Amino acid sequence: MEPSSQLTSIKRDDSARWYRVCTDNGFEGTYPYVWLRDNCRCSQCFNPSFNQRTLKIVDLDPDVIPSSETIVDDGQVLRVIWPDQHRSDFQAAWLSRRHFSDRPRDLVTDPELQSWGAELNGNIPTFDFQKLLEDDVELYNWLDVLNTKGLAFVKGAPTEKGAGGQIAERIAYLRRTLFGETFQVSTAINPSRPAHTLQAIGLHVDQPYLNYLPGIQMLHCIEKINVEGAENQFADGLRVAEQIREEYSEEYHLLTTREVDYETTGVQFGKSFHLKSRLPTIQLDMDGKFQCIRYADIWRATSMSKVPVGQVTKMYKALKLLNDVMYRPENLVRHQLAEGEIVTFSNHRVLHSRSAITITGEGSRHLEGSYIDWDEALSRMRVLHRKLFCSDARP
Amino acid sequence: MEPSSQLTSIKRDDSARWYRVCTDNGFEGTYPYVWLRDNCRCSQCFNPSFNQRTLKIVDLDPDVIPSSETIVDDGQVLRVIWPDQHRSDFQAAWLSRRHFSDRPRDLVTDPELQSWGAELNGNIPTFDFQKLLEDDVELYNWLDVLNTKGLAFVKGAPTEKGAGGQIAERIAYLRRTLFGETFQVSTAINPSRPAHTLQAIGLHVDQPYLNYLPGIQMLHCIEKINVEGAENQFADGLRVAEQIREEYSEEYHLLTTREVDYETTGVQFGKSFHLKSRLPTIQLDMDGKFQCIRYADIWRATSMSKVPVGQVTKMYKALKLLNDVMYRPENLVRHQLAEGEIVTFSNHRVLHSRSAITITGEGSRHLEGSYIDWDEALSRMRVLHRKLFCSDARP
Repeated sequence: MEPSSQLTSIKRDDSARWYRVCTDNGFEGTYPYVWLRDNCRCSQCFNPSFNQRTLKIVDLDPDVIPSSETIVDDGQVLRVIWPDQHRSDFQAAWLSRRHFSDRPRDLVTDPELQSWGAELNGNIPTFDFQKLLEDDVELYNWLDVLNTKGLAFVKGAPTEKGAGGQIAERIAYLRRTLFGETFQVSTAINPSRPAHTLQAIGLHVDQPYLNYLPGIQMLHCIEKINVEGAENQFADGLRVAEQIREEYSEEYHLLTTREVDYETTGVQFGKSFHLKSRLPTIQLDMDGKFQCIRYADIWRATSMSKVPVGQVTKMYKALKLLNDVMYRPENLVRHQLAEGEIVTFSNHRVLHSRSAITITGEGSRHLEGSYIDWDEALSRMRVLHRKLFCSDARP
Repeated sequence: MEPSSQLTSIKRDDSARWYRVCTDNGFEGTYPYVWLRDNCRCSQCFNPSFNQRTLKIVDLDPDVIPSSETIVDDGQVLRVIWPDQHRSDFQAAWLSRRHFSDRPRDLVTDPELQSWGAELNGNIPTFDFQKLLEDDVELYNWLDVLNTKGLAFVKGAPTEKGAGGQIAERIAYLRRTLFGETFQVSTAINPSRPAHTLQAIGLHVDQPYLNYLPGIQMLHCIEKINVEGAENQFADGLRVAEQIREEYSEEYHLLTTREVDYETTGVQFGKSFHLKSRLPTIQLDMDGKFQCIRYADIWRATSMSKVPVGQVTKMYKALKLLNDVMYRPENLVRHQLAEGEIVTFSNHRVLHSRSAITITGEGSRHLEGSYIDWDEALSRMRVLHRKLFCSDARP
């Protein structure tokens, strides 16, 4: 139903308890009675300044059947009279965005996920730092790439701390963790975390020991002097999950249903911590679709508290298979981060790694890391989508 | 197996690929071969200063069968030699905490949930603000009550802003949301949110439109002058879910499997937002056990994007049933918050409400709200548990 279309007819179906509403361009939408009553927009049932329902569910009769219905205002309004004489007016344009039949896809909430592998080498979507800060289209496109592909680069950032925070300001705020609002990854003589050593770090997601995994990760290269190695690799958890589902159904079942424990202990800002999570390696949503991957060798706990002892060897085989599939050359994207570049990726989906580092002279390497969560990123996308692409400004 | 116990015998089972280990006090534990190999504590396989595995899963053979095993050090160490001559020594006490048979319950990760109802009236566990800040036992006990019951009061807080932040400092940090590090709930002439009006607010969880629901909520009463009403009610989502499961299996199935949309739009700190979530009302874990409740009439979206049109009326009936069960007098706990009191509760489990407010003179009411997340709260509990109750300081 187009916003300009007019309502032409209403058919009652009192046994199904819904209306079938037709428009002059051939559209037919279904609207359950109780849903209409619940979403009455009158000032008694709805507070437009808070955009919130004031009608209480206790006052709602799920079996309600309207007394009458008419199309008024030249087909622009559906008017329903309820048994208690309460009147509800529904704008045609408002109804058209909410019908239950042939529901239009919400591309922010349900993006068309694009899985990827080595073909992305040299083709990783790249955005401009300054444009991200100033241009809403650039910001929307960057978020859209993160939402659909999960991996993007940002170029042209200043070579000083705070670039991630500036991007976060455009969205909402940085997601803080026990390691601070931002975290510094620099080669160190007495490293307190593996990221600060010169060692290679295998493919992993960040902070898998949090039940609430950080959403989007930003790694900003501030300094890189006389450094060899330190190449980043990326693998798409969605692609990896798809391959395992197609090729190894038993292992896929284990990885999606059996929980694995992650754990970390230490001291940060003078305080001891002991974080633990326990979730499936590949998390699916209620429809069985990919939602999240959680994998990192180094933080896997010694205990496997939810794996029966008879399945422990099978679980190791499944985890090793996952690792093997991740490292298939067809799945790997490589990138050598330069000063002023920020790699940004969905930490719910993309695994990242770093090859070993060699300091070849008076050198050092310094990255600043930070996170933004998906709830706030998708909120910003929705606001931008309406502003940039919708003539109708109402939510 | 007690820490003081000694290993007395090892039985190999190469077909099951595990050891059965006996101790002098009659305990028998099962240890899969690959699990032992994965958790070798030698300096080559494990970094004790990071408390992290350095052995890579790619180097692990899930079908590995040890060459030999011996008990050494007067029964204090199990020594395993692997086919490549690698040697692993496992301390008896370390093994005893990690065996796969008759696993000891982790009371922090898997608390014994205690559901409650009206019998808690006048008996709500109460803690002292200053003791919480100074005494680790008070802090642990408060967290334990939140983890098992979900509801507690804190008395004796100063009547000025910042009390929640002081408590959070004892844990880790406040969870920020779009509404800030803390949020102010005060009666206002031009309210921007329903909490700021004088209206009653029905039972709900906070910010249900976030997929990542805030964990623990703290509402600190700073000022209450010439105020009548404003009584808080609380209902235990676990008890409500149990009652629905027992009495209404069809509705329980709908509430645990069909996702409901929540949504909010507005402007905060000069920025527009549009947050959306879509999850079942009662969320269960992989074992089908209660995990979280998500319900709030006012933020329920107009769209029900994952409910087939033929089930919309049934979903309304299930939601209305949930509401009815919540408000059963046997389920309600009431409390009149006084100045200097903080009500603290799990926002994953406890529904809260407020009755209407009457200002009877030159009066005002001011609460400060804030959140702490469960990942960090449970981390602090684990650290405190070890410090307070374990003679063995190793993780």
